[in-house]
Amino acid sequence: MTRRKIRKAFEYEYIVPWVDTDALGIMHFSNYFKICERAEQSYFEYRNMEENYGIYLPRVHASCEFKRPLRFRDRAVISVKLSEVGKGHMTFQYSIKNRKDGELNANCSIVVASVDKNMKPLDIPSELLAKLQ
Amino acid sequence: MTRRKIRKAFEYEYIVPWVDTDALGIMHFSNYFKICERAEQSYFEYRNMEENYGIYLPRVHASCEFKRPLRFRDRAVISVKLSEVGKGHMTFQYSIKNRKDGELNANCSIVVASVDKNMKPLDIPSELLAKLQ
Amino acid sequence: MTRRKIRKAFEYEYIVPWVDTDALGIMHFSNYFKICERAEQSYFEYRNMEENYGIYLPRVHASCEFKRPLRFRDRAVISVKLSEVGKGHMTFQYSIKNRKDGELNANCSIVVASVDKNMKPLDIPSELLAKLQ
Amino acid sequence: MTRRKIRKAFEYEYIVPWVDTDALGIMHFSNYFKICERAEQSYFEYRNMEENYGIYLPRVHASCEFKRPLRFRDRAVISVKLSEVGKGHMTFQYSIKNRKDGELNANCSIVVASVDKNMKPLDIPSELLAKLQ
Repeated sequence: MTRRKIRKAFEYEYIVPWVDTDALGIMHFSNYFKICERAEQSYFEYRNMEENYGIYLPRVHASCEFKRPLRFRDRAVISVKLSEVGKGHMTFQYSIKNRKDGELNANCSIVVASVDKNMKPLDIPSELLAKLQ
Repeated sequence: MTRRKIRKAFEYEYIVPWVDTDALGIMHFSNYFKICERAEQSYFEYRNMEENYGIYLPRVHASCEFKRPLRFRDRAVISVKLSEVGKGHMTFQYSIKNRKDGELNANCSIVVASVDKNMKPLDIPSELLAKLQ
Repeated sequence: MTRRKIRKAFEYEYIVPWVDTDALGIMHFSNYFKICERAEQSYFEYRNMEENYGIYLPRVHASCEFKRPLRFRDRAVISVKLSEVGKGHMTFQYSIKNRKDGELNANCSIVVASVDKNMKPLDIPSELLAKLQ
Repeated sequence: MTRRKIRKAFEYEYIVPWVDTDALGIMHFSNYFKICERAEQSYFEYRNMEENYGIYLPRVHASCEFKRPLRFRDRAVISVKLSEVGKGHMTFQYSIKNRKDGELNANCSIVVASVDKNMKPLDIPSELLAKLQ
């Protein structure tokens, strides 16, 4: 078992657009998952891992705990942490806060698996693994 | 130019889900375009054209006129009309009404082009053309 | 603590639309959460609880385990189970299967809180509680 | 008739996220409309008009012509032009280009109406009108 704890944080900012709100005036919960994905994409770009290395990363598990709502025009700050890397999967932790007061909006956790374009499991390439550490 | 007027109507029902609403309490306008696409898919299934014939139908033009808002739980009735078929494109007209009172919510128009999976233009297969008439 | 186990299942069908797919050819994971919400809405309608009783039900927790991908035009069958009702919250369990072969695509769990339109916590009205049992 | 031609351009950048792609590997057309809205929001912020002035701006017409697809990670540059302001409406023009080569992806046009929170038409406040010029 080659799991390693990795502790590199990264921040991504997202301004809540009108389309993300719902009739209760708050950001619809499904958008938190989309924001995590955007933050992850930005994290990979930041760390120069935006090539795809022949792998895709479909999600195998996703969860969020919603603490406080976000509203139209709020600036959310998403902290991304790659908390675990296995042979064929990675786990990301996200904390989403409001820029204005620093209070927590949500905690999310997402596990991705490494697959080829036909969805067959594939070990994370060593080249990418090296960069992840 | 082989354009033909085609007049076959088809109805599709859609119940507005919470996620489609926005902070003004109405269905966000981008969802009308998604509903048209769902109605189109249903139209193809209804007419036994759900095979893909090796073609894809990306949109080349899309427009909607919004007349009256839809709200959470409203039952929208979408009438689909394939109004024109060319060698490599089709035009669909949609009218979206509220089941409750029959009043018009929106009129939309979408033009799709026929392409292969690499996005190269492709004539609409004669087999599909035959079914469309 | 007034928690009750409730065991009433309900099924909802959803045909995967094109807009839900991603570049890997599978349904994007965020859509599973939207489908659960649609199924929940349908569940409330089915049980004649579609009035809002002055309450709203924002999510406080949501999680999904993704087992097998869904693709364009797949018919997903969502089984909804209201697994727990507290004074101010409810927990729903969802299992999402493919109509064609009955295989499991995802298991999801969503906890909702009862609030008023200003997001203040509100006990679930006894009238609704009575119907839930 | 108090219509004025206004020629102030504004640019907004958007990096195509995975969730916006579809099974053909391109950005789903409905997202162009969402991007226009994000660009509009950014335009209002840039011009210090992010207060809501008691008005909301639901769309009454929206159209896009799609010229060339956008793909995952593409950097789209959206030029926003407020092309017309009436007593109770505004028209925005958007051109969406690929940062990499400057080629045009789409041209969009959106007309918004000014309403109060109950969706009743409302003249655009003179305070906002003044800023718009």
